[in-house]
Amino acid sequence: MPAQYEANAQLSSQVASLIGRVSQKLMACGTMLATAESCTGGLAAAHCTEVSGSSAWFVGGVVAYANGVKEQVLGVPGAVLAAHGAVSGPVVEAMARGVCRVTGAGVGVAVSGVAGPTGGSVEKPVGTVWVAAVMAGEQERVLVQRFVFAGNRGQVREQAVQAMLEMVEAVLG
Amino acid sequence: MPAQYEANAQLSSQVASLIGRVSQKLMACGTMLATAESCTGGLAAAHCTEVSGSSAWFVGGVVAYANGVKEQVLGVPGAVLAAHGAVSGPVVEAMARGVCRVTGAGVGVAVSGVAGPTGGSVEKPVGTVWVAAVMAGEQERVLVQRFVFAGNRGQVREQAVQAMLEMVEAVLG
Repeated sequence: MPAQYEANAQLSSQVASLIGRVSQKLMACGTMLATAESCTGGLAAAHCTEVSGSSAWFVGGVVAYANGVKEQVLGVPGAVLAAHGAVSGPVVEAMARGVCRVTGAGVGVAVSGVAGPTGGSVEKPVGTVWVAAVMAGEQERVLVQRFVFAGNRGQVREQAVQAMLEMVEAVLG
Repeated sequence: MPAQYEANAQLSSQVASLIGRVSQKLMACGTMLATAESCTGGLAAAHCTEVSGSSAWFVGGVVAYANGVKEQVLGVPGAVLAAHGAVSGPVVEAMARGVCRVTGAGVGVAVSGVAGPTGGSVEKPVGTVWVAAVMAGEQERVLVQRFVFAGNRGQVREQAVQAMLEMVEAVLG
């Protein structure tokens, strides 16, 4: 049965078709997706669950906005946060592994970035976003990538969600 | 400093002004908000974090779409889920308490409902949504309420988010 979409202006056609492909692949693999979000603050999960029937492939997620939530709920080591900062490859990788562990999902995708308009630095300007996708199990696959998106806060967040879904598609092979 | 809003078509003016009031109250109380979402799937957290500066009052949340996540991450007792069903007062109350416990937030708000278009029953028709708001601490306050919203999946979810924010405002007193 194909996923059903409600008419919804919030879901761009590009993200909608990505979600369609990702959900088909997840169901074909018999596995479930979980999200761990910092800068997108739940937007990726919200988009996934706009689709009726998403409970067949989406298990849930953690909005780890504060670093304390990254540590306490997702198990990101404080030393990794201190060494690399919240917006870094090692942190998103730990978030993705953590969300698989705590939710039991087979695939986890995590994001951390500087959505702006404040919070940027020379090293990590506004628009810097790290994404990690992990396929848990015996043959673990991990993809970690850095992006620098243009646009305002909302546009950076939407592009980050699209990148998350593209990396889930890639890690599913 | 007032909360800054980006131009964003996704945030209705009603929800935006609710978020403005709630964030002012939270900062005045020196406390933080966390969300525990089932049917809204992260939409409440996404709306809260559309606002730049939300890290001053929003700590994060859990998207507990599957019942396993309600149990394993939020600590909702399996017996409560079995006795009342996921869409019930006792479950959202346990979700709200759970998200305070795991994130360390002072105020937790939880939602579980039937967003549709499928999943309705005679007892719990499409649009049935339970919301709980908890203010943790020595003088704990708990509000639990049932709503039945009209509209499609997207409309039910948006009304649920609005109800969540109104109940946070109410529990803050």
